[in-house]
Amino acid sequence: MMMGNPFKNRDVVSIKDFSKDDLLYLFGVADRIENLSEKERGHLLEGKILGYLFFEPSTRTRLSFEAAMLWLGGKCLGFAEPRTSSVEKGENLADTIRTVENYVDVVVIRHYKDGAAKFAAEVSNKPIINGGSGTEEHPTQAMTDLYTIIKEKGVIDGLKIGILGDLKYGRTVYSLLYALSLFNVKIKLISHPMLRVRREIFFDLEKKIALSEHDNVEEVLPELDVLYVTRVQKERFPDLAEYEKVRSSYVVNLKILQKAKEDLIILHPLPRVDEISYEVDSSRYARYFKQTLYGKKLRAALLSSILDAKV
Amino acid sequence: MMMGNPFKNRDVVSIKDFSKDDLLYLFGVADRIENLSEKERGHLLEGKILGYLFFEPSTRTRLSFEAAMLWLGGKCLGFAEPRTSSVEKGENLADTIRTVENYVDVVVIRHYKDGAAKFAAEVSNKPIINGGSGTEEHPTQAMTDLYTIIKEKGVIDGLKIGILGDLKYGRTVYSLLYALSLFNVKIKLISHPMLRVRREIFFDLEKKIALSEHDNVEEVLPELDVLYVTRVQKERFPDLAEYEKVRSSYVVNLKILQKAKEDLIILHPLPRVDEISYEVDSSRYARYFKQTLYGKKLRAALLSSILDAKV
Amino acid sequence: MMMGNPFKNRDVVSIKDFSKDDLLYLFGVADRIENLSEKERGHLLEGKILGYLFFEPSTRTRLSFEAAMLWLGGKCLGFAEPRTSSVEKGENLADTIRTVENYVDVVVIRHYKDGAAKFAAEVSNKPIINGGSGTEEHPTQAMTDLYTIIKEKGVIDGLKIGILGDLKYGRTVYSLLYALSLFNVKIKLISHPMLRVRREIFFDLEKKIALSEHDNVEEVLPELDVLYVTRVQKERFPDLAEYEKVRSSYVVNLKILQKAKEDLIILHPLPRVDEISYEVDSSRYARYFKQTLYGKKLRAALLSSILDAKV
Repeated sequence: MMMGNPFKNRDVVSIKDFSKDDLLYLFGVADRIENLSEKERGHLLEGKILGYLFFEPSTRTRLSFEAAMLWLGGKCLGFAEPRTSSVEKGENLADTIRTVENYVDVVVIRHYKDGAAKFAAEVSNKPIINGGSGTEEHPTQAMTDLYTIIKEKGVIDGLKIGILGDLKYGRTVYSLLYALSLFNVKIKLISHPMLRVRREIFFDLEKKIALSEHDNVEEVLPELDVLYVTRVQKERFPDLAEYEKVRSSYVVNLKILQKAKEDLIILHPLPRVDEISYEVDSSRYARYFKQTLYGKKLRAALLSSILDAKV
Repeated sequence: MMMGNPFKNRDVVSIKDFSKDDLLYLFGVADRIENLSEKERGHLLEGKILGYLFFEPSTRTRLSFEAAMLWLGGKCLGFAEPRTSSVEKGENLADTIRTVENYVDVVVIRHYKDGAAKFAAEVSNKPIINGGSGTEEHPTQAMTDLYTIIKEKGVIDGLKIGILGDLKYGRTVYSLLYALSLFNVKIKLISHPMLRVRREIFFDLEKKIALSEHDNVEEVLPELDVLYVTRVQKERFPDLAEYEKVRSSYVVNLKILQKAKEDLIILHPLPRVDEISYEVDSSRYARYFKQTLYGKKLRAALLSSILDAKV
Repeated sequence: MMMGNPFKNRDVVSIKDFSKDDLLYLFGVADRIENLSEKERGHLLEGKILGYLFFEPSTRTRLSFEAAMLWLGGKCLGFAEPRTSSVEKGENLADTIRTVENYVDVVVIRHYKDGAAKFAAEVSNKPIINGGSGTEEHPTQAMTDLYTIIKEKGVIDGLKIGILGDLKYGRTVYSLLYALSLFNVKIKLISHPMLRVRREIFFDLEKKIALSEHDNVEEVLPELDVLYVTRVQKERFPDLAEYEKVRSSYVVNLKILQKAKEDLIILHPLPRVDEISYEVDSSRYARYFKQTLYGKKLRAALLSSILDAKV
């Protein structure tokens, strides 16, 4: 019996709104899209338009959504710069959404404010996808991360996963943690004490999943199956001097990787600054560029599921 | 006998260049496009390219043109930021036009200078559409406004239409007034005395159409069939203190709407700042978001007529 | 016997990497594309995506690449503003390339640094096209220039070609000189003594081709078959006062053109500031706008050859 499509016409605001079954459904769609003939795939979203409203800079998220849409025969319009839009003239977000929804079939929004995507979804008659909002949510990145893990490791359940870097200000980290909490994994949180996961979120997650906190990546590296590295985000840091102090203390290089399992994989949501040394790029561990390719595929699955294309 | 297509290869610079018959022809095309099958519609402008040259910010105009083009199977290229183009290097408008016309089939231009679109049309071998120039002209907005009225009220002739807000600096107002002057309507101009329609235009219009001027929206509201609200455009205001003083004096809210006719409709070219209270959005009167949808349809009709697609 | 396609999967970094046969092959493809039916042409690059990464402003180069891609049924994505991308967050060029290459089939990059395109090509698994880098290279402009000459004059060999303007800072000049050095032409370099071709490049070219240097365009004009004018690029000038002094001393107008051959053609890579008077635009000599059309066709040939479409 076919499972119904749990993504049809659905908003994607928070990773917390999705179940393990939802995610596995999506990964299945991603696999099936890849196995289609080029011709079939290229007509899946024919005549459909994605609107992108990016109030913050992005390469990966915007371009991977566009690439996914074009890959499936759809089209895109929008803005990558609020300055080019009527937002300049003092227009509020609700009005922008209620205008653009008349031009498109689905909207992806990135916004600097927490709650912006949720608000957009409440206002809009078309499905809204959160392309990253404020410091809290980046659900399609978390979906990409889990899809990468399952494709590269074969499973998620049973893995030991280290998450390194800025755990306080990174929205990808929060979405990833909630996504992982649907699975049976052990998570090692590795960061400078200043950059720990926020307490209320830590306590919430602790009820669902095995978490531990560490100051030092070398201490936990030998047991990890996956190391997920994040950027220390300068632009979220209140004090630049503090930033300069901590930025270099959590760098992954070939030397420390000598202690890693042979089949460790390293992920990163990118962009990277210098938290993974370039020498690691060509090592057996690196999966962060391949991850961007999974990002395109996962988003193609998401768009075609929301728009209920028959895959 | 079929009427010939009066828009074939034609520039759309000023609303004054079009007759009542031209506008009715266009509205007919818009209706016919909507009644096409998705498949027919999606091939109307196949292989055609729209060039957009936006020297001023815009959401609605640019995106509605893009949406119209994609809806009919066409494609788009251009810039929404003069900084991303050679205009940065001191290139003049004529050279930009003579370059871009080699890449596209039709051009839409928005420019901060009066006369820029007219100049572009003189220079170009491809049809030029004025997407808003200076303080004087925004013809496709006026076409959209009239199409909205005729779709929502069934007729234009015989209506009483109030126009509220910044009547001095608003290019949409001027184009709308000239468009309405082709029909048999009564117009109530409602504004702060500082923001009256410019005298030379008022005297010119007075010969063609019934106009009266009012300080107060409540005074004329009971008799109106259409209330067209415009933003007090901060960026066109010479003195910001004066702007702050007048901005709130012409706000449409549910309280004053208690005096309105049951079937009053409220339009707004958007973006709005606060001249229509948000509580009005879900009232029976609001048509300003639907208006943006009519904007896409009207522009689809315009593009397909200019490019002589067989609808 | 058909010649193999020398552009298949090839990077286009420097004009120096291409032979005369390569260029003639490309011009043949450009001619054949033009002779295809609209339907055949419109499917040549169906399903293919061009990524554009523009770190410097551009109208012609970016839009002509986009136009070429759309003309052949392909699609485009990218950024025309590094500020809209993760480059803002400190991402390095290599990571940007390694990300974007997962979304597209071929990449065109414009960058302010010498060597950026070369570096991108080393890093990338997808073909990289240099859309202008630093002060040294703009190979697709040089290909366009030669294609324009051969289409407008019938031949390249045997011509006398004047190159006027800023010969020191202009990357189009360097690429053009190396392209012309593959043919049997005589080149007259005309510039202010401050703006001569850099010595190391002059000495290198002198071995391959007949070069002479002149202060005055009137002195060589009567013998020229082609006059190639370039802009004195304000933004590359160390001292603005010097710029103001020289900018007007090399202006081509109808008066000096009285001394020209009847069949002289004038080219310009554009944008122009004032080095060609506007009165020349409608003269028999002007080919600089037509040159932008050849630019689209040449780039269509290049993209379809790199992606090995069967033309």
